[in-house]
Amino acid sequence: MADRAKLLTSPGVFGNFSTYKLRSDYYKLSAAERKGAAAEVMAVVEKHKANIIADAYLTRGFEAQSDYFLRVHSMDMAATQAFLVDFRATRFGMYSDVTENLVGITKALNYISKDKSPDLNSGLSSASYTGDAPRYAIMIPVKKDAAWWNRSDEERLKEMEVHTQPTLQYLVNVKRKLYHSTGLDDTDFITYFETNDLGAFNNLLISLAKVPENKHHVRWGSPTVLGTIQTFETVVKTLSMGN
Amino acid sequence: MADRAKLLTSPGVFGNFSTYKLRSDYYKLSAAERKGAAAEVMAVVEKHKANIIADAYLTRGFEAQSDYFLRVHSMDMAATQAFLVDFRATRFGMYSDVTENLVGITKALNYISKDKSPDLNSGLSSASYTGDAPRYAIMIPVKKDAAWWNRSDEERLKEMEVHTQPTLQYLVNVKRKLYHSTGLDDTDFITYFETNDLGAFNNLLISLAKVPENKHHVRWGSPTVLGTIQTFETVVKTLSMGN
Amino acid sequence: MADRAKLLTSPGVFGNFSTYKLRSDYYKLSAAERKGAAAEVMAVVEKHKANIIADAYLTRGFEAQSDYFLRVHSMDMAATQAFLVDFRATRFGMYSDVTENLVGITKALNYISKDKSPDLNSGLSSASYTGDAPRYAIMIPVKKDAAWWNRSDEERLKEMEVHTQPTLQYLVNVKRKLYHSTGLDDTDFITYFETNDLGAFNNLLISLAKVPENKHHVRWGSPTVLGTIQTFETVVKTLSMGN
Amino acid sequence: MADRAKLLTSPGVFGNFSTYKLRSDYYKLSAAERKGAAAEVMAVVEKHKANIIADAYLTRGFEAQSDYFLRVHSMDMAATQAFLVDFRATRFGMYSDVTENLVGITKALNYISKDKSPDLNSGLSSASYTGDAPRYAIMIPVKKDAAWWNRSDEERLKEMEVHTQPTLQYLVNVKRKLYHSTGLDDTDFITYFETNDLGAFNNLLISLAKVPENKHHVRWGSPTVLGTIQTFETVVKTLSMGN
Amino acid sequence: MADRAKLLTSPGVFGNFSTYKLRSDYYKLSAAERKGAAAEVMAVVEKHKANIIADAYLTRGFEAQSDYFLRVHSMDMAATQAFLVDFRATRFGMYSDVTENLVGITKALNYISKDKSPDLNSGLSSASYTGDAPRYAIMIPVKKDAAWWNRSDEERLKEMEVHTQPTLQYLVNVKRKLYHSTGLDDTDFITYFETNDLGAFNNLLISLAKVPENKHHVRWGSPTVLGTIQTFETVVKTLSMGN
Ligand code: HEM
Ligand code: HEM
Ligand code: HEM
Ligand code: HEM
Ligand code: HEM
Repeated sequence: MADRAKLLTSPGVFGNFSTYKLRSDYYKLSAAERKGAAAEVMAVVEKHKANIIADAYLTRGFEAQSDYFLRVHSMDMAATQAFLVDFRATRFGMYSDVTENLVGITKALNYISKDKSPDLNSGLSSASYTGDAPRYAIMIPVKKDAAWWNRSDEERLKEMEVHTQPTLQYLVNVKRKLYHSTGLDDTDFITYFETNDLGAFNNLLISLAKVPENKHHVRWGSPTVLGTIQTFETVVKTLSMGN
Repeated sequence: MADRAKLLTSPGVFGNFSTYKLRSDYYKLSAAERKGAAAEVMAVVEKHKANIIADAYLTRGFEAQSDYFLRVHSMDMAATQAFLVDFRATRFGMYSDVTENLVGITKALNYISKDKSPDLNSGLSSASYTGDAPRYAIMIPVKKDAAWWNRSDEERLKEMEVHTQPTLQYLVNVKRKLYHSTGLDDTDFITYFETNDLGAFNNLLISLAKVPENKHHVRWGSPTVLGTIQTFETVVKTLSMGN
Repeated sequence: MADRAKLLTSPGVFGNFSTYKLRSDYYKLSAAERKGAAAEVMAVVEKHKANIIADAYLTRGFEAQSDYFLRVHSMDMAATQAFLVDFRATRFGMYSDVTENLVGITKALNYISKDKSPDLNSGLSSASYTGDAPRYAIMIPVKKDAAWWNRSDEERLKEMEVHTQPTLQYLVNVKRKLYHSTGLDDTDFITYFETNDLGAFNNLLISLAKVPENKHHVRWGSPTVLGTIQTFETVVKTLSMGN
Repeated sequence: MADRAKLLTSPGVFGNFSTYKLRSDYYKLSAAERKGAAAEVMAVVEKHKANIIADAYLTRGFEAQSDYFLRVHSMDMAATQAFLVDFRATRFGMYSDVTENLVGITKALNYISKDKSPDLNSGLSSASYTGDAPRYAIMIPVKKDAAWWNRSDEERLKEMEVHTQPTLQYLVNVKRKLYHSTGLDDTDFITYFETNDLGAFNNLLISLAKVPENKHHVRWGSPTVLGTIQTFETVVKTLSMGN
Repeated sequence: MADRAKLLTSPGVFGNFSTYKLRSDYYKLSAAERKGAAAEVMAVVEKHKANIIADAYLTRGFEAQSDYFLRVHSMDMAATQAFLVDFRATRFGMYSDVTENLVGITKALNYISKDKSPDLNSGLSSASYTGDAPRYAIMIPVKKDAAWWNRSDEERLKEMEVHTQPTLQYLVNVKRKLYHSTGLDDTDFITYFETNDLGAFNNLLISLAKVPENKHHVRWGSPTVLGTIQTFETVVKTLSMGN
């Protein structure tokens, strides 16, 4: 079985984010047919559990472009593809249209490492999440302009320190994870967050809007995807209701 | 039952705006089937009335991207989602395609508060709506550029005072409400207005086009959504007509 | 009955422009069913004739995004909505997808008035349309940037005089009408023209491309909609042909 | 019968370019039904031959947004519309979705005329197409920015001379035709080319990318449409194949 | 039979990239009907093997806009079209929607040739791919701005040398191929890569984000298409599974 803890903390892991919209004809299937959907999906998750972990989120009611989204981790993108191909071959998957798909890879810290920025690095590790179990997840793609990438390592380090400073205080109520995507799709980073306090999350983003790094964003969202954290089974069941 | 007055005036309330287009196959249902739609929808509203309030607006004839839009308030985004998931499971909801969905949170004043800008603050509270009951609602998303957010608090305060000055005179025929969205979706603000005088509303927007703040808008509309204020029941009934 | 002459010349009148594409399944109805379409539509026009006037234009063959467009005038946007809701409930309306919808209001002259610009104002009134009855109508949305709106009244007046100067000569073969839309939808103006000489119209637009005002356009078309002027009945009948 | 040679060389002629994608349900018609499509289309061409000429091009395999495109010339846009309305009422036309539609008018030379630029003008007329019969046609819409149009006649003439200089050598393997569209749709020019040498055509476009005029393009393609030159009948037959 | 080695290495060869999404109704065909799909497709490949070579890639699970993509090479674009027209007439092709189509031509080196840049040229030829057989292919369209094209040959050469320098080290784990597209579609270049190391590929792209050339990109991706390298048969079979 894939090691969840390791996949969620190691560098070199592939993260795959895909958003889906159920087609309207799904609801023309009989309620009975839709009832079997969750079991069929869970069998696919079971089949691939040695190679991938899959998280599911309900976005209906929050997003126009999706009803749910998936986050899949693996050490090998081909294993991720194998899982998603099988998922799309289930009844539920067949009635789902993919509306966005982003892939990235995790890495060791580039800037706020023990070596390059010791104080902020220790700030990062000294604070930890103390809020209620997060009920919400947010996925935000980020792409920076050529001017950013053409600056020196030192200049970029300095900017990232200014990025980190005001965000440290949110570590208590926001969990975060970063994926690198340049060349793997049309974004540079996929940022992923979990929180139970959407008001705090809004304040966090405003504090990052105010730092100079923000002048280099050519993509900051588009889409911003907000969902509730659910089991895969619940997501399928919730979206399979209706007469 | 959710406290309408409180939800519409307190900070920390979540506002959810979603626009919908009825699919053409809705009109292939028999007139009888469509007749039951309003009751089924109202039962869902009733079911969730302890947690949310829902307002509905008819946009058909004014908008290409929607036939109606909903504004839902609650103290908890998960409650809003639960309501909208149930709404989408009704016959009427199933035949509706979501075309836009924005979420925001209400806050205390950031700039034109008693402390920071006492004169304008009292101008805000001294005027009040005196026109006929508003028949129209307008929803306009607003996003500002990085240069705006990177200016100092003082500079932004000054600009917002210039924003407020020419708008005070419209308080007599325009009601307004502001939601903050940075990081919750791809806009910074959702602005909502009610009026019975669309000519005055056009003049109000022109006066805001003329202040320097306007140079910092990267999104001002897109979409601007104009609808008539209706009961939820009337919206469903009106859109369910036809042979 | 709505006073056509008054609605087409007074300030404070609402203009509503909507473009439509017939869905392909319309042509799966039997020819007999499509034959009745025009009468059903005309009955709706008749029903609302006290409150609105409706003009129809055939765009098929000229536009990718529409087959026809409607221009509706009234003193009250709710009356316009009532008409369009009924129109969409006809067989023909049900099989039409709205692809664009713009609303505006007419106003007295802002710049080239008797007071502010007497010479050009008299130029406007001294020339009049002398060509053949126009067979073509063109609708062009226009939106100006924040820099334009932030200029002083005098500066904008000066620019509008430069706009007017080269266009006066086209009054003999182009009829025009202006609607103001800021805040009512995502454009500042809807411009509407009728002509029988599309070559002259092309020259007119080139002459306006050459004035400095053009540097402030963020929307100039998108879409530019060109249609032939037809009776509403003919539009419906023409589009209802086919086996 | 419309005079093909005259329509293809005179000023004041209307050119209409429309691109189409066949809907997938066309292939659900029986092969027999599809077999009759070409004859039905050719009958429409025959019916309108006094007023228009129609050329057809196969783009399937080259373009995502179209399977074929049409170029229609006439002295009167209403005649073009009449033809296209009838074409769309054929079986083949009914199963086609229009994906782009541009209209323009031909004019005498604005810049490289005998008077204004005698040397280049004689260069234009001294070279002529000597390659194999062209098998490919390319349609490229072009729109220029306000800065271009605001420059003086002399400055624009100078730039167009720089445009013409490097292109003269391609007259031997590229045929060209220019249509003016400002105000008739959302482009300023429609450029149309025929060639048998796509490598040379690529080099031609690179040479135009290198002249200063290119800095003023706000649209240069979008879409660039490449097709093979075919008879109308062959286009319909080729796209009607399949089981 | 088309000479694969020659087509993949010579200048003057046409490359055609097309991405496809299977329509949902494909899965409404019986499993038996879908079973025959691969054989029918392979028969078309066989029929055209004298003129074209066709490579297929599975993108499902990585891309929202496609399930697979094709790369077709030939000496003659008309031969490529003939193949793709036949492919689209198969059952599998009929149920596929084309979502992107780019065409280009291969050329001799423009900059890093033996003459103009001898050192880097020998760097290019001295390194070669030593990794595991690549399992992934990436296609990235690139378009440069007018400022780039207006620079002198020397300046562009210098920039391309700066492009080449940091990329040489990736020759051991990334294979590459370049196609020129200006005027053939809405991009200047189609870049194609094969690798087994997506982490290295991400680093390669970051190193190119950091060179000044990047400031001249108006298109760098959009879409970036990532797929697994498969036989054509496997792609069809994999996508034909499901109950
Ligand atoms: C609890 C809140 C946050 C903290 C403590 C935080 C901290 C950090 C740190 C330390 C880094 C540097 C990583 C490295 O050294 O390689 C970083 C990078 C980054 N963060 Fe944040 N961050 C937070 C929230 C956010 C948010 C809300 C966003 C935007 C959606 C964001 C976007 C990014 C991006 C795109 C990078 C990579 C930038 C680059 O490498 O150029 N972060 N963050
Ligand atoms: C009756 C007319 C209006 C009045 C009296 C008014 C007044 C105000 C005031 C006092 C604020 C500051 C709130 C604070 O202190 O945090 C504000 C903020 C704002 N207003 Fe208006 N406003 C009006 C109309 C509009 C309109 C028509 C729009 C645009 C659609 C608009 C967009 C905004 C936005 C986006 C903000 C938040 C700006 C920021 O925090 O950066 N307002 N308005
Ligand atoms: C017969 C040709 C035309 C004439 C005589 C003409 C004349 C005028 C005049 C006198 C005004 C000022 C109205 C006022 O004082 O409030 C005006 C405004 C305007 N015109 Fe034209 N015009 C012509 C054609 C066009 C065309 C072809 C367009 C573009 C599609 C256009 C776009 C506008 C716009 C958007 C305004 C409002 C500008 C503003 O208030 O900032 N006009 N025109
Ligand atoms: C054989 C190759 C070509 C030759 C000889 C050529 C020559 C010319 C000439 C002489 C003019 C000036 C017409 C006048 O005096 O009004 C012109 C205009 C123009 N050409 Fe080309 N051209 C060639 C290819 C192209 C290509 C490949 C494009 C771009 C797709 C292009 C786009 C245009 C446009 C848009 C104009 C009108 C510009 C304006 O009026 O501002 N031409 N061309
Ligand atoms: C192994 C890695 C790479 C190497 C060794 C490499 C090397 C080169 C060389 C030598 C050239 C010049 C060709 C000539 O002389 O005409 C070139 C051109 C080019 N490369 Fe790369 N490259 C690599 C990766 C990439 C990547 C990842 C991209 C972007 C997706 C890219 C985009 C381009 C483009 C667009 C050109 C044509 C530029 C122009 O002609 O203006 N290359 N590359």
